[in-house]
Amino acid sequence: MPQAEKEYDVIIIGGGPAGLAAALYTARDRYSTLILEKNGLPGGQIMLTEHVENYPGYQKISGFELVEQMKAQVASFGAETVIGKAANAIRRRDDGKIEVDVNNGELTYVARAIIVCPGSDYRSLDVTGETEMRQATRVSYCATCDGAFYRGKHVLVIGGGNTAAEDTVYLATRFTEKVTMIHRRTEFRAEKVLVEELYAAADEHNIDIKLPYVPTEIVATENGQDIDHVKIQNVETGAIEELNVDGVFIFVGMNPNTAWLQGIVDIDESGYIKADPVTMKTSMPGVFTAGDCRCAAAMQLATATADGVVAAMQLRDYFRDPSSWSGGQCDHSTEGW
Amino acid sequence: MPQAEKEYDVIIIGGGPAGLAAALYTARDRYSTLILEKNGLPGGQIMLTEHVENYPGYQKISGFELVEQMKAQVASFGAETVIGKAANAIRRRDDGKIEVDVNNGELTYVARAIIVCPGSDYRSLDVTGETEMRQATRVSYCATCDGAFYRGKHVLVIGGGNTAAEDTVYLATRFTEKVTMIHRRTEFRAEKVLVEELYAAADEHNIDIKLPYVPTEIVATENGQDIDHVKIQNVETGAIEELNVDGVFIFVGMNPNTAWLQGIVDIDESGYIKADPVTMKTSMPGVFTAGDCRCAAAMQLATATADGVVAAMQLRDYFRDPSSWSGGQCDHSTEGW
Repeated sequence: MPQAEKEYDVIIIGGGPAGLAAALYTARDRYSTLILEKNGLPGGQIMLTEHVENYPGYQKISGFELVEQMKAQVASFGAETVIGKAANAIRRRDDGKIEVDVNNGELTYVARAIIVCPGSDYRSLDVTGETEMRQATRVSYCATCDGAFYRGKHVLVIGGGNTAAEDTVYLATRFTEKVTMIHRRTEFRAEKVLVEELYAAADEHNIDIKLPYVPTEIVATENGQDIDHVKIQNVETGAIEELNVDGVFIFVGMNPNTAWLQGIVDIDESGYIKADPVTMKTSMPGVFTAGDCRCAAAMQLATATADGVVAAMQLRDYFRDPSSWSGGQCDHSTEGW
Repeated sequence: MPQAEKEYDVIIIGGGPAGLAAALYTARDRYSTLILEKNGLPGGQIMLTEHVENYPGYQKISGFELVEQMKAQVASFGAETVIGKAANAIRRRDDGKIEVDVNNGELTYVARAIIVCPGSDYRSLDVTGETEMRQATRVSYCATCDGAFYRGKHVLVIGGGNTAAEDTVYLATRFTEKVTMIHRRTEFRAEKVLVEELYAAADEHNIDIKLPYVPTEIVATENGQDIDHVKIQNVETGAIEELNVDGVFIFVGMNPNTAWLQGIVDIDESGYIKADPVTMKTSMPGVFTAGDCRCAAAMQLATATADGVVAAMQLRDYFRDPSSWSGGQCDHSTEGW
């Protein structure tokens, strides 16, 4: 058994906006607070976004800069952060304290309560140019976040599920001049009603649906800040076409970073942590959650930070009376946001 | 019947942080958006707070300045705001649109959907000096918000209910050097277990409980930025004492601004609007809510703005399919936060 580290009041697993907001509240309440961050830098996937204009209170800010502000704020109240520590198990001890193993048992940390905020990753296609254009906010995985940047523009949507169908209509009716939509199969995986709505909107809102196609390369302009064109390939004929688009939306699903919690706390069939949406309590007493990893999360900066605040406030009640616990409920699907 | 005004996609009732965040998302989605603000300035009661240090992303900002940022952000996406318009009724028409009467029928506005964000007001005592010292963040109504300003200080708590009992212990154990607590009666209204915890903490954490006492005046220092002393009166003897404290916390309840909605949407026994905490849907189709007025609200800036974001996102689904609606559920009490 690995040696126990210093004991904390609260350990927060994951240093994205949800975890940072939770740490802000717990540290400001003068609970000793440790943030465990698996990457070399805290911040989560908002760090990959250059242009944020929908976080209330900042007209324009980069994800990196916003996270820097949050980190400084959290540090000013004394929360500690360790990087390169990936949690891989949590256990509730007989005395009610929670142990967190990191890096496959390299170390064990102990706390009176835990807030689990590992986030979710958008699934990527690993197409050439995808990562670089994501940084420039020209490849996006979230229509709510980035659709407004494409008013009067032409975008490519890639995907065939519910989100792809719904958000193509959303983009085409609210913002774009044209949407080209491609999917690797000849039939959509989306529910029939959504596919019908997609085709019904196609003529009026200039949606060009091309099946079965896959992207093969996203080619940047010389300055590296915009998309010059995207190469797409007809799966049946092998023929390659070049599309001149201003942006690419990839809707091929999300991976909540919760595989390591299977069998430890209740998780729904899509991998999201089941938690009471009012209290952020999971099925394990003393273990809260917050952010994009939880069932029914709205996957926005403002909602992730609010989750963290709620978890931190509920934690005080738990410390006052650890004997009562009701958590792990979630009647809502995470799909459909 | 008053004449109908211009029709909007969305009308947001109340221009505090919840309403502004909702407007940010609906206006950015290019839905025509009107904010109805009853006061002469939008912003809600955070405008009355000089020092905010727990909104994630701003280490220190005044409530006024934060609201200015949010207002500019919302205006940049084209949302309109009208001031001096107090909503007094909403009605769902046969065609599904919602009418909003303002100023007792002076005007009627029409929208496809409504987000109700009237907020809650902290009950005040109307003691001389209270308003002035509130502006300077020396009189507070929220321990979570302002407790951290009083590390090593002496504060006066006024009140006798659950929040007063719980938050006196919270302030005394987390922050203060001393808490003097007064209540106008000889017995507390708080639950027995909370009163027991209060008395159990009193010795160790320097809580001086004085019953029955009322405050008669909060006297500022010459510069007007700090409290010099508070005059309190023994209700039985009439004798007046002067207390040298650094801050005053008044915990005598909240008034959700929902009286005008009685009989229109489902409201809980404390006056909070019943809404599904995941969707912000009230019991009336097409009517969402957000912020401190809703059942189980956490009453923080970050949580109010998140509510607004969620309502705005759910509204898109409602527009897509107005026929399905499930709302007005709230199993959680708003007390105890």
